[in-house]
Amino acid sequence: MAVLSYPISGSTLKLTRVYLIILYMHTCETQRYSEKHERDPVSAIKPDHPASLRKHFSSVRRLTGTLASRLSVEDQSVQSMPDASPTKWHLAHTTWFFETFILKPFVPGYEVVDEQYDYLFNSYYNSIGEQYPRARRGMITRPGMDHILEYRHAVDDAMGDFLNASPDGLPEEISALIALGLNHEQQHQELLLTDIKHGLSVNPAFPAFEPRGSVSGWGGSELEMIGYHGGLVHVGYRGEGFCFDNELPEHKCYVYPFNLASRLVSNGEYQQFVADGGYRQPGHWLSDGWSWVQAADVSMPLYWHEIDGQLLEFTLHGLKPLKPAVPVCHVNYFEACAYASWAGKRLPTEQEWEIASRSVQLEGDFMNFDQLHPRAAKARGGLQQMFGDVWQWTQSAYNGYPGFKVAEGAVGEYNGKFMCGQQVLRGASCVTSPGHARHSYRNFFPPGAQWQFSGIRLAQDAK
Amino acid sequence: MAVLSYPISGSTLKLTRVYLIILYMHTCETQRYSEKHERDPVSAIKPDHPASLRKHFSSVRRLTGTLASRLSVEDQSVQSMPDASPTKWHLAHTTWFFETFILKPFVPGYEVVDEQYDYLFNSYYNSIGEQYPRARRGMITRPGMDHILEYRHAVDDAMGDFLNASPDGLPEEISALIALGLNHEQQHQELLLTDIKHGLSVNPAFPAFEPRGSVSGWGGSELEMIGYHGGLVHVGYRGEGFCFDNELPEHKCYVYPFNLASRLVSNGEYQQFVADGGYRQPGHWLSDGWSWVQAADVSMPLYWHEIDGQLLEFTLHGLKPLKPAVPVCHVNYFEACAYASWAGKRLPTEQEWEIASRSVQLEGDFMNFDQLHPRAAKARGGLQQMFGDVWQWTQSAYNGYPGFKVAEGAVGEYNGKFMCGQQVLRGASCVTSPGHARHSYRNFFPPGAQWQFSGIRLAQDAK
Amino acid sequence: MAVLSYPISGSTLKLTRVYLIILYMHTCETQRYSEKHERDPVSAIKPDHPASLRKHFSSVRRLTGTLASRLSVEDQSVQSMPDASPTKWHLAHTTWFFETFILKPFVPGYEVVDEQYDYLFNSYYNSIGEQYPRARRGMITRPGMDHILEYRHAVDDAMGDFLNASPDGLPEEISALIALGLNHEQQHQELLLTDIKHGLSVNPAFPAFEPRGSVSGWGGSELEMIGYHGGLVHVGYRGEGFCFDNELPEHKCYVYPFNLASRLVSNGEYQQFVADGGYRQPGHWLSDGWSWVQAADVSMPLYWHEIDGQLLEFTLHGLKPLKPAVPVCHVNYFEACAYASWAGKRLPTEQEWEIASRSVQLEGDFMNFDQLHPRAAKARGGLQQMFGDVWQWTQSAYNGYPGFKVAEGAVGEYNGKFMCGQQVLRGASCVTSPGHARHSYRNFFPPGAQWQFSGIRLAQDAK
Amino acid sequence: MAVLSYPISGSTLKLTRVYLIILYMHTCETQRYSEKHERDPVSAIKPDHPASLRKHFSSVRRLTGTLASRLSVEDQSVQSMPDASPTKWHLAHTTWFFETFILKPFVPGYEVVDEQYDYLFNSYYNSIGEQYPRARRGMITRPGMDHILEYRHAVDDAMGDFLNASPDGLPEEISALIALGLNHEQQHQELLLTDIKHGLSVNPAFPAFEPRGSVSGWGGSELEMIGYHGGLVHVGYRGEGFCFDNELPEHKCYVYPFNLASRLVSNGEYQQFVADGGYRQPGHWLSDGWSWVQAADVSMPLYWHEIDGQLLEFTLHGLKPLKPAVPVCHVNYFEACAYASWAGKRLPTEQEWEIASRSVQLEGDFMNFDQLHPRAAKARGGLQQMFGDVWQWTQSAYNGYPGFKVAEGAVGEYNGKFMCGQQVLRGASCVTSPGHARHSYRNFFPPGAQWQFSGIRLAQDAK
Repeated sequence: MAVLSYPISGSTLKLTRVYLIILYMHTCETQRYSEKHERDPVSAIKPDHPASLRKHFSSVRRLTGTLASRLSVEDQSVQSMPDASPTKWHLAHTTWFFETFILKPFVPGYEVVDEQYDYLFNSYYNSIGEQYPRARRGMITRPGMDHILEYRHAVDDAMGDFLNASPDGLPEEISALIALGLNHEQQHQELLLTDIKHGLSVNPAFPAFEPRGSVSGWGGSELEMIGYHGGLVHVGYRGEGFCFDNELPEHKCYVYPFNLASRLVSNGEYQQFVADGGYRQPGHWLSDGWSWVQAADVSMPLYWHEIDGQLLEFTLHGLKPLKPAVPVCHVNYFEACAYASWAGKRLPTEQEWEIASRSVQLEGDFMNFDQLHPRAAKARGGLQQMFGDVWQWTQSAYNGYPGFKVAEGAVGEYNGKFMCGQQVLRGASCVTSPGHARHSYRNFFPPGAQWQFSGIRLAQDAK
Repeated sequence: MAVLSYPISGSTLKLTRVYLIILYMHTCETQRYSEKHERDPVSAIKPDHPASLRKHFSSVRRLTGTLASRLSVEDQSVQSMPDASPTKWHLAHTTWFFETFILKPFVPGYEVVDEQYDYLFNSYYNSIGEQYPRARRGMITRPGMDHILEYRHAVDDAMGDFLNASPDGLPEEISALIALGLNHEQQHQELLLTDIKHGLSVNPAFPAFEPRGSVSGWGGSELEMIGYHGGLVHVGYRGEGFCFDNELPEHKCYVYPFNLASRLVSNGEYQQFVADGGYRQPGHWLSDGWSWVQAADVSMPLYWHEIDGQLLEFTLHGLKPLKPAVPVCHVNYFEACAYASWAGKRLPTEQEWEIASRSVQLEGDFMNFDQLHPRAAKARGGLQQMFGDVWQWTQSAYNGYPGFKVAEGAVGEYNGKFMCGQQVLRGASCVTSPGHARHSYRNFFPPGAQWQFSGIRLAQDAK
Repeated sequence: MAVLSYPISGSTLKLTRVYLIILYMHTCETQRYSEKHERDPVSAIKPDHPASLRKHFSSVRRLTGTLASRLSVEDQSVQSMPDASPTKWHLAHTTWFFETFILKPFVPGYEVVDEQYDYLFNSYYNSIGEQYPRARRGMITRPGMDHILEYRHAVDDAMGDFLNASPDGLPEEISALIALGLNHEQQHQELLLTDIKHGLSVNPAFPAFEPRGSVSGWGGSELEMIGYHGGLVHVGYRGEGFCFDNELPEHKCYVYPFNLASRLVSNGEYQQFVADGGYRQPGHWLSDGWSWVQAADVSMPLYWHEIDGQLLEFTLHGLKPLKPAVPVCHVNYFEACAYASWAGKRLPTEQEWEIASRSVQLEGDFMNFDQLHPRAAKARGGLQQMFGDVWQWTQSAYNGYPGFKVAEGAVGEYNGKFMCGQQVLRGASCVTSPGHARHSYRNFFPPGAQWQFSGIRLAQDAK
Repeated sequence: MAVLSYPISGSTLKLTRVYLIILYMHTCETQRYSEKHERDPVSAIKPDHPASLRKHFSSVRRLTGTLASRLSVEDQSVQSMPDASPTKWHLAHTTWFFETFILKPFVPGYEVVDEQYDYLFNSYYNSIGEQYPRARRGMITRPGMDHILEYRHAVDDAMGDFLNASPDGLPEEISALIALGLNHEQQHQELLLTDIKHGLSVNPAFPAFEPRGSVSGWGGSELEMIGYHGGLVHVGYRGEGFCFDNELPEHKCYVYPFNLASRLVSNGEYQQFVADGGYRQPGHWLSDGWSWVQAADVSMPLYWHEIDGQLLEFTLHGLKPLKPAVPVCHVNYFEACAYASWAGKRLPTEQEWEIASRSVQLEGDFMNFDQLHPRAAKARGGLQQMFGDVWQWTQSAYNGYPGFKVAEGAVGEYNGKFMCGQQVLRGASCVTSPGHARHSYRNFFPPGAQWQFSGIRLAQDAK
């Protein structure tokens, strides 16, 4: 019997009975984890169920509209940095995706809404054609919001007709593309929120995206280092639902025994790092990280503000007092590594994260207008905060899995061409759309990126 | 009898009878030119007439609103380059000017509309306080258009009350400040149009500010070089109306005999320069100009487009065929100098321009929604196109006149601190507000600026 | 019996008898490869043999001096880009290394040659103190060459005394540091050559480092894809000689069956990629790579020149006709990936490269003044050109091996802090110092780096 | 009788008898000043005297060699910023000037020393051909110093033969070009010193160009404001010696009465400005100046260093304590204007400076290895320090005089194409070559330039 990966006695004695059960699950002979959560009809998009596809299409598209509708026209137009995009552009680009990859090739006689949208709303698909410069998306004042919304309605109508015309299901190739389009739109829902958070943050009035929400800071728990055996494990997506190509193929890899922190690093812990001169000592920093700290004169995470001696944090609910039990957020890879070094630990690899994550359900506080911010850990032992608070930086550079193949055509540009100079983040955040997360999900951003809801989970080699 | 400045026989024999009369006027003993045009009650702001001030206040403020109202909220929010500002910002900044320099100091108990506006809408008055970074004005999504318009109304109401409370006139200090505020707002009316022209120009659809307008290209005339005697002349504003401090003091200077072109350089003439390799030969360019041509890979004026072999020009009425008789526009100082060198001529000094300009009335095609573009010269001899088509680059660097004093306080920052690295432009353009021009008016921009309605009038030393 | 890694029938039938013997070696039960080559007394530095250390110390230090002596004082002073350093600086920095890490801590009463050298010649050891800005090293005209050579002699003398004073060997800690210093100096010998190659390349006269050398382009062979089994293999250094900390610890990892190209990609093959529009089609490029191609307007490798219709290559022997059979060189990771995509292959992982490399001896054309350039492949089958022609880009991002620990103190800054944003290169080049290579050696550079002798070896998944 | 310009009773009563005599001279009817000093055979180059030309040729060329010979090869190779050039380049470029403008066109059969020198050592003459990028001149390690010196000797020999072949004088066109070449070389002598000063300044050891020299700080005098009448004056060169084209034509201009400071602003006075928060208050700065202060985080002049609480100044004799009576030096136009504003004064126009300067002899402490630094004012009244300490910023933008014509051909690029974006400096500095100054001399640099020996002389309108 080859045990692949399960919690062993780590640096903590607090393992609860819940864990023992999970432990048992992970020692079963299948050597594979339960896929149950991914079959949940509520959350995940199933390309092969026509009704599911229709239902998801309308709910995903509606959510994007709801997000945008909470913003003024000015808010929706702003691009506060080259990496961010205006809300307007997100609305149009996600629509363009369906028009370009479904309606144009598969609906005979379909007439595009506007020839110029190919140039304006193509993000990075060179196979489709040239694109308006990314850093200048905020310059496009026309088409205005009214035309963008008309565009959405026109494409939604055409997609509805198309989906309804095949009540027994579409060819797999097409339904997979639609599922890709919906997952793609969910990614843009999260980006819409992170981008507008940045857009609002440059306003000295610190306006709120959702003034009625709040940041709950109650709770917290001791940080335990939970042990896992590792071994020759399988990593990557296995199941029948949707996944991105970068989660494939499922493959074997060898993982040494390791410990993973039971919860995320909190604001309070990170404050100690700051207070200990963390941003003034090169010793804990990667070389590129230290260059960044010096060049940008950084002394605390993005969105932290010290005003009149008080530490505040800009959130989607406005400027709020920094709560110690809430996970630290909006740190980049450099900051995450420096903190880990200071704490005498390291970041996990993505393989470690993935095999450990299988011991918990795919549950968490996903996008919810009442609290668009990570929450304090619960006052209990065991692995928590894996999904729905912050994306967690791993020490793994983003690359293709063994056997990874870039798809033919424009869709092949979705993931593969970004496999250089980026780090993998795992989990999901408080602004990830419900139903979008997976244990095998691989998010990725350059090491300097701060504007995502990215935080820190510690790991270490098992002794 | 000291002759100051009048047309002499230049390189042309076409002097008409009209000129002979003007000639006479300029040889009169007063050595000063008629100020009649500046006393025209329709056009110029008279700080010392209470009714005039009230009337001008409401008409100038109304015109700004009219300009903005032709744009969508998105259009009004965009900042397409650091030198340009969003329409929204122009609306707010001109309002802030009256609030800051009139209402706050002179209206007892006046409560500011929003404390933060000082930071957001102060342009460059360091004496007032720090400013939101100029290049980031487009990032301010809130206050939204609705609040900006409320701000305008609140300040207009308070100003109305203030003006009405003194039916017999305000102290000179205050009325002069109000006149300054109105002239300041007129400057921003022109900037609003040049800035939105640039904002729309970066859109591949080339949308029009005013689709119903047109570009008239009929007419044209031979370019004559009209002679002027020069001598020990007076330059600078003399009169009783409003002028900016940089037009003062009126002073003596010695001007050698010169010739000035009867009209502006036309698109057709400039096209010959382009066709002759003007942008590929360093010989005609200033050193900085040639560096600019190479670094920016320039081959024609801003807003010219060669599409399918046809030359087009982007205008506030959309993309239009380039008309040969229309004055060339949106050239910078480098281009103006290079053209003049190629043409075997030079640019005038601002003194030459000013003394020659006195031979013509202060008339021209100022801002007019039917044609927001310069017009072809009229088919007649004599000096024309001095006002109302394009600003005309002079070879004079912008500096203070002899005896120029920077005013005390924040208003002293209006002009003086820009007296370095800029060139003087004279005249007025087709988007200059009616009543804003003067013979002595000194506009100024850095030599690389292209986005203003700036063109070329040639000069040469008299033989 | 667990076979780890050996050639299997790949896409070629040309496996020679030589391979079968090697194949046998690799199926032996030890599951480890022969370390014989690393025991060769001629080549590798053995910290634990006092005589070896003394001998290596003097030969390594002498070689650096020989390299520099072929250059004029001006050549030795130039820094042609921020990533390169002047020869002078290499001479001083490698000396500073011994002074700082051996003489100062371990020789009682040692007096430093110049207090300021710590600031001037410390490369990046923040634990030691601040450093003169890297990009400005070429600005330091004093100390001059005479003082730098005196510095070298003084430190060599003190090191000689120190080594001779312990004829029976130094404590392991110290001898390991000396071995590190010598390997460090060998790395700088290669950098000295790549840096001066760049320095000379910016001169329009294309001067030669060594005019008498030549570029041999005879030979060449068919490119075969040789198969390897993979499996659960060991990777990393195992042996008793010197290695860098980044080669440790030896560890297990799982490798899928793969094919590796028998030889490097040649100039002739790369020319076909160029001729096929390789630099004009985004489809084969990583996203960052395509941005680089466009921003830098790249159309061929660094040091290629098309002059009068002929393709030439700048080498350390001057400008030479490009020889088709010679390996392509000075390509960066983006170019290597794009070429591999165009060729329908991929780059190897560093694990694949390492386990395949064990089938060949640690032999090759290392630094040799007769030919400081890669050579054409030999006209035979089987794996060749693994060492001594060009470093070979792998698709592996540079990271710490499982269990990797950063050493305490300044020496800990040697490798660990660069583990972000760089790619691993394997093998060794024609300008690598003799005795410096290892099968487990991990070189690393950012993906955009071109100035190293870096080339391309293709791989693919086994079918 | 039209008085043009003479001292009137200003803010001082200390006018000495010497002044009264000069006063008389300036009230003579000729309305022109004595040109005697410019006829001095020791100092100025007379193109029309064959013997003078030969003598000057050899002495000017020799001085350049002497300057370079005091530097190591490394010193001569460094280019520490784009605006500076290596000594080596100055040596070659000044030689290229004679080869290109004299030997090639006028010596039949002359063979150029090296075809490539045209590309390497042409500074900015586009008519001659393309140039190696200015900012990269320090990258050219070959030709080495040995070849550069051979180049100088070869050209000197050829020029010697050419000059000797025409004992009765050369055609005026040629002798004028040789005089231009010699004055050009003198300009480069000064640049050589300012450039190497910058080159040495970036070395933390602050090495001296001439260790034996010293900075004399004795003396000093009260600053008086001396009055001048102004009027309709003549400005520009009048005489028979050499002058640059930008000093021509002599022309009339009207100058209002003004006062000019009797001496330069001293370090001690400038220190008060610094201590008073001069660099922290925007009120005294030009807009571009304040941007520069903030962007570059400036708090004192270039080359000032505060070390252990003591103010030091880097000089060509090394780092020296800042002496209060010595003129402040290495300030740019922004600093000069800000100081003047703080002091309640202004900078002079170049016309004011020129007409005032005629009251003093063309004498001063020109280039002298004993003190390559400005000296304290003498303890006497009257106008002093006009020549030989520091160049003095004027408020005049650099432009062509009325009637200025750019010469035909490459020589026409000497001055004219720089007439944009630069300010005129008047006088001469302590590193100006003897015999190079003139009352009408117009030096010019961009407003941000600090590395020249540039200082401040105050002026004000006469009351």
